[in-house]
Amino acid sequence: MTAVAELPRHAQPSQFPTLDDVLLLGGIELTRLAERVGRTPFYAYERSHIVSRVAQLRRALPEGVRLHYALKANPMPALVQLMAGLVDGFDIASGGEMRVALDAGMAPGRVSFAGPGKRDEELRCAVAAGVLLHLESEREMERAACIGAELGMTPRVAVRVNPDFELKMAGMKMGGGPRPFGVDAERVPAMLQRLERLGLDFHGFHIFCGSQNLSAAAICEAQRRSVELGVRLADHARAPLRMLNIGGGFGVPYFPGERALDLAAVAEGLEQSLGLLRQASPDTDLVLELGRYLVAEGGIYVCRVLERKRSHGQTFLVTDGGLHQHLAASGNFGQVIRKNYPVAIGNRMHAAATETVSVVGPLCTPLDLLAERMELPRAEAGDLVVVFQSGAYGLTASPTAFLSHPLPLEVLV
Amino acid sequence: MTAVAELPRHAQPSQFPTLDDVLLLGGIELTRLAERVGRTPFYAYERSHIVSRVAQLRRALPEGVRLHYALKANPMPALVQLMAGLVDGFDIASGGEMRVALDAGMAPGRVSFAGPGKRDEELRCAVAAGVLLHLESEREMERAACIGAELGMTPRVAVRVNPDFELKMAGMKMGGGPRPFGVDAERVPAMLQRLERLGLDFHGFHIFCGSQNLSAAAICEAQRRSVELGVRLADHARAPLRMLNIGGGFGVPYFPGERALDLAAVAEGLEQSLGLLRQASPDTDLVLELGRYLVAEGGIYVCRVLERKRSHGQTFLVTDGGLHQHLAASGNFGQVIRKNYPVAIGNRMHAAATETVSVVGPLCTPLDLLAERMELPRAEAGDLVVVFQSGAYGLTASPTAFLSHPLPLEVLV
Repeated sequence: MTAVAELPRHAQPSQFPTLDDVLLLGGIELTRLAERVGRTPFYAYERSHIVSRVAQLRRALPEGVRLHYALKANPMPALVQLMAGLVDGFDIASGGEMRVALDAGMAPGRVSFAGPGKRDEELRCAVAAGVLLHLESEREMERAACIGAELGMTPRVAVRVNPDFELKMAGMKMGGGPRPFGVDAERVPAMLQRLERLGLDFHGFHIFCGSQNLSAAAICEAQRRSVELGVRLADHARAPLRMLNIGGGFGVPYFPGERALDLAAVAEGLEQSLGLLRQASPDTDLVLELGRYLVAEGGIYVCRVLERKRSHGQTFLVTDGGLHQHLAASGNFGQVIRKNYPVAIGNRMHAAATETVSVVGPLCTPLDLLAERMELPRAEAGDLVVVFQSGAYGLTASPTAFLSHPLPLEVLV
Repeated sequence: MTAVAELPRHAQPSQFPTLDDVLLLGGIELTRLAERVGRTPFYAYERSHIVSRVAQLRRALPEGVRLHYALKANPMPALVQLMAGLVDGFDIASGGEMRVALDAGMAPGRVSFAGPGKRDEELRCAVAAGVLLHLESEREMERAACIGAELGMTPRVAVRVNPDFELKMAGMKMGGGPRPFGVDAERVPAMLQRLERLGLDFHGFHIFCGSQNLSAAAICEAQRRSVELGVRLADHARAPLRMLNIGGGFGVPYFPGERALDLAAVAEGLEQSLGLLRQASPDTDLVLELGRYLVAEGGIYVCRVLERKRSHGQTFLVTDGGLHQHLAASGNFGQVIRKNYPVAIGNRMHAAATETVSVVGPLCTPLDLLAERMELPRAEAGDLVVVFQSGAYGLTASPTAFLSHPLPLEVLV
């Protein structure tokens, strides 16, 4: 029986084994890993978890689907380097991410750049590098064409489409209705004509509806509709549809009551969508763009208990980590109602959960909360608190300069 | 008539004049300032606003109240340096803030260090420097005593008290009930005995109930009760009460419908509280610790419109700034319901608000929103968007590495 079994409300983070009472990450005991890193707090990402997650996807998904990694989920260079050998391409969202992507050795032709507010210098770097621009507006198309002319290069472009439907049950909706992302579907035909006149090198469409979805049915429906929309819009292009990026949106379970995505069901739906695409356009690459799903569950955030504290009958574990380094786990990153991430005491994995405690950080704010009234084994100063599901949107999504604490370290093991 | 007059729901940010259509900051036209900074986005803080805010407080508050600046609100070194010449002391919340405070030339004896999770190395630096430790627990007291013995120095300490009352109507409550901050009031007498046996140099108490409060009555009540509690607890100390820090909590108006704090009413209440203290303990310094109130309104965040965008009948201004650089304005820092900060087009200050637009950033997430459906003058690509009330909890409270964009700059003008 693991400590996790005593937290029945969270999906079981079965990804990491234990040795005696201690969590193992990359086969290393967490206590030893903390010594090796040299200080707490830190993020640790497991190579083997990432490798097997990608392999699991490859096995499940229909052959021919191209798998991209979206760097925004976790741009740690060593992790991106590992990923470069596993996936078929990278998706980037800034000039900074482009540098990391290309440094990792990914061929520029397999890198695509989306983002509603690309600066001129970013467009310029991207055109110069030869990465695929996902055009988010007609104006961006004109800017890209100008830059191409200046550089004497033909920009490689796709059109990001704001679909006329939305992704049901998504953690974040990014399509359907008025959106700053992409071009409204009904304006795409006219845009394609202009794109051709501008002499841009058209590759296809990017249709991305939302993220963090745990419903296979909702994902399958959005994928099918994305393929239908892509095929329909491709009729308006003279150039062939070489690529259709239907986004990702695969969620991971963070909170009590959430269940892991049914990958087999997603694969079944995708098989049908791919069939639709093959029928209409046999040579089009279908691209799936995943960030969170590839890395979230392979990463943990580790901080150390500085002291146990009692106040008016409640117990607090005061740690050296908190909101400034893991904003999402504190409940302050797009959550409406705060819920606990799965948390454990990493060196007491098999101890029974005997007390209800809140895990807080060192900041002078009540927002600095990593776990609120959670059942945990009794922990003492020096023990290691582990926040699971922390491999995506962790460090880079956190206000690390808040209250001027040292940056947490990151390791890939 | 200013553009602000057309946004009647926000309190008027009257602090900055305009020249023609352009906002002036430190007497410099915003358009020229943007050229001088060299790139957008940036934060700009106005020296004269900070100077006059402190002067205004000095005039309003009863003589003898000592004014501290809490670096956590804005630790920009140049701003802290300016502040060093204006206030009576600094409050810090980490070893990193201590270095900035001491580099600015503030005497260590006028620096106090609070925070529920101080690491051993931070305690050690603080004892070595001679700053005043606000002890947050009995255990921290023991750790401080050990470190003092190791260093052959006597730590200067105050006890942070978790009061037995709360600050009504506060944006964030930090006292009353179970809290990770300070020591429950009823445990303080025993702690003082131990503190004396440990030979620590006792200075007084820190009683801080909450922050971002716009109700003078609530602040006055909390201050009075803090003074009463401090005086009561001081009876249990053999050493005299040299210092009583009653925190701050003075709010600034951010959102539609909020009104500026009535400083005269606060001053009147404080006069009475100071009277109570003088009666019981004539030589005690009463310390007021303010962060946000000193700097929030003197600072703006500036980003540039990259393009106007229409989607399904709505207009978006896509800018180069956003959530990653100003998390609070995006509504993702401790807000339950998202509301708009006051926003203007800094080079069209006198133009009529003729359209309803949403101001968004460059990130691929619907959270990246600086203004939602706000009435603004028509803005074009190249125009400067200004977010007011951005001098506190702006840059350092933001996930600047999110999506790997360049860091915004900060200037003090």
